[in-house]
Amino acid sequence: MADYSRFDATEIKRWTSDVFEKLGVPPTDAQMTTGALIHADLMGIDSHGLNRVTVQSYAGGLKNGSINAKAVPEIVHEASSTAVIDGQNGLGPVASTVAMDLAIAKAKETGAGFVSIRGSNHYGASSHYSTMALPHNMIGFSMTVGGLGVVASGGRGRRVGINPMSVAAPAATSDPFILDIATSVVAAGKLELARMKEQPVPVGWIVDSKGNDTTDPNEYWKGGAILPLGGGISTGGYKGYGLSVMIDILAGVLSGGGHIGQRDGSSGGTCHFQGALSIDGFGSVDNFKAIMDHLVEYLKSTEPAEGSFGVLVHGEREVNAERERLQKGIPYHREVVGRLEVLADEVGVPLPKPVAVE
Amino acid sequence: MADYSRFDATEIKRWTSDVFEKLGVPPTDAQMTTGALIHADLMGIDSHGLNRVTVQSYAGGLKNGSINAKAVPEIVHEASSTAVIDGQNGLGPVASTVAMDLAIAKAKETGAGFVSIRGSNHYGASSHYSTMALPHNMIGFSMTVGGLGVVASGGRGRRVGINPMSVAAPAATSDPFILDIATSVVAAGKLELARMKEQPVPVGWIVDSKGNDTTDPNEYWKGGAILPLGGGISTGGYKGYGLSVMIDILAGVLSGGGHIGQRDGSSGGTCHFQGALSIDGFGSVDNFKAIMDHLVEYLKSTEPAEGSFGVLVHGEREVNAERERLQKGIPYHREVVGRLEVLADEVGVPLPKPVAVE
Repeated sequence: MADYSRFDATEIKRWTSDVFEKLGVPPTDAQMTTGALIHADLMGIDSHGLNRVTVQSYAGGLKNGSINAKAVPEIVHEASSTAVIDGQNGLGPVASTVAMDLAIAKAKETGAGFVSIRGSNHYGASSHYSTMALPHNMIGFSMTVGGLGVVASGGRGRRVGINPMSVAAPAATSDPFILDIATSVVAAGKLELARMKEQPVPVGWIVDSKGNDTTDPNEYWKGGAILPLGGGISTGGYKGYGLSVMIDILAGVLSGGGHIGQRDGSSGGTCHFQGALSIDGFGSVDNFKAIMDHLVEYLKSTEPAEGSFGVLVHGEREVNAERERLQKGIPYHREVVGRLEVLADEVGVPLPKPVAVE
Repeated sequence: MADYSRFDATEIKRWTSDVFEKLGVPPTDAQMTTGALIHADLMGIDSHGLNRVTVQSYAGGLKNGSINAKAVPEIVHEASSTAVIDGQNGLGPVASTVAMDLAIAKAKETGAGFVSIRGSNHYGASSHYSTMALPHNMIGFSMTVGGLGVVASGGRGRRVGINPMSVAAPAATSDPFILDIATSVVAAGKLELARMKEQPVPVGWIVDSKGNDTTDPNEYWKGGAILPLGGGISTGGYKGYGLSVMIDILAGVLSGGGHIGQRDGSSGGTCHFQGALSIDGFGSVDNFKAIMDHLVEYLKSTEPAEGSFGVLVHGEREVNAERERLQKGIPYHREVVGRLEVLADEVGVPLPKPVAVE
């Protein structure tokens, strides 16, 4: 039995955009939101596109009014190179795309543009925004506050966020460098998977309700927490804890949205931080890209560890996935297709036909 | 027998500055360099001040001419919010202090200032520069390329740098948030200590020459390497590897200094990246600081893990050390004092008398 159906990227984009329009989202905003979701699916970031329930949660929020479909992001403060945008409790990708466009416009003028965003919602994969800088010959940055799921080193319970960050830098002939990482060891999705399969997780992923190491994924749902990047204190977990707090400061505190202990996770409480540095504000773009090519080559030429397939450069796997999926279509598991068909029926926009099953 | 002697911070500063002047460094530059070293000693960052051989290595470089005592950092490229500075192979703290001052001046005008630095040398502790932004009500950033000591995830051998980064943000009545972390699990100093004590190191610190986990610190000197923050691939080591490359891009590639595989570690090959975001470019400074106070309070009120002394906020320990050491003097071990006396004799600047022994 065929487990996966591939959908043409352009067709599934149009469908997704039509769904959002049917739910009252203006066409441009629907396209921004679709862009963020399909970016994740194209790049194989399966946790942030149609593959997971992101589109359903966006649609649900729009239907029950907890997300404002007609929200117009507002610039509430501005200087030549900086701004704060209030998303007015609209879709996360709308405020975030507007913010990244603004950061890029400012970087064109001054060399640097940084925008902190409050009053927003889930924005998809961070790399969607950082990579917006690449065609402008800029280095892009994007960070967002995430779920309250991570222990503060030395403590117990969930106190800081699974706050992800992305940095993207262009090369000449090589693929761009695209870092896109959570500041926790893992995302909660991997724990769900281990729990379903009844498998232990590696030491260094989570702690139990007393803050002690455990390999039982169930402990996460019994008052436990994910460890910050680095794991325990002896392996540098306080560094990941610090990176999580840094993102909370740049996104939550700087935007005036509040820190993670103040935000209650309700709609419109999500904060982001985005920026761009224009390479020509620092020197020759051609020279930068030539060194980037050389750097990528250098990293990929590393001798593999025993039994390893070798060294990847960040973004390599994602850009390869995008190439393949643009050509052959985006594969969705039949369970995902089933969920999309339910949404299609609810909203009244028929799902396009798959281009292949495999 | 008394192991530690405490020296008055002002006196030891004057001594250090006099030493640099004797070695041909102009007074202002000598003070900048001293500031960086004594910052580390005051804050208990014992790996970057007089406690380790940093001052001796600076002095050695000045004496043998591999560091240019009279170097004048040059702005080689500039936009309203960005610049590249060439340190002209002078002392790292000179180029870096000039660069941070420039970043702050730009942030005053536009809200943001970012400067990439090449042609520099070892600059001390990253937090010395990020914290320069604090009195200006700015968030400070500082990163530097470090020693080639870290494995690229999936590979073997030392391929990327122990590249540290620091971010500092002010609060109202709380101590500031000061993150200062290497992007590797540990610094090489901790391996040296384990080797001397003939003790194993935790799994997740280093790999052997084949890229396999090992607990034998000696393997680091037999073709092994330190793991990036996160450790192995299953615990997110590719994230630390990516952060190390990110710093190489912002410091090395963006400044035109070259990436880690191109720089050969010789004098004048060190690159840094520094910046400042002016809080008033994003909104009310008072509001920001009030939220910061609340955030610090929130983090510190976390229930401790079983057997733990509780949760620290980044910078807390360092700022407490600074307070104590400004008052009681900076403690140096008698071995360190012995080395300083050798330098004092060589240069002809007598070491001040200790204010206490303990």
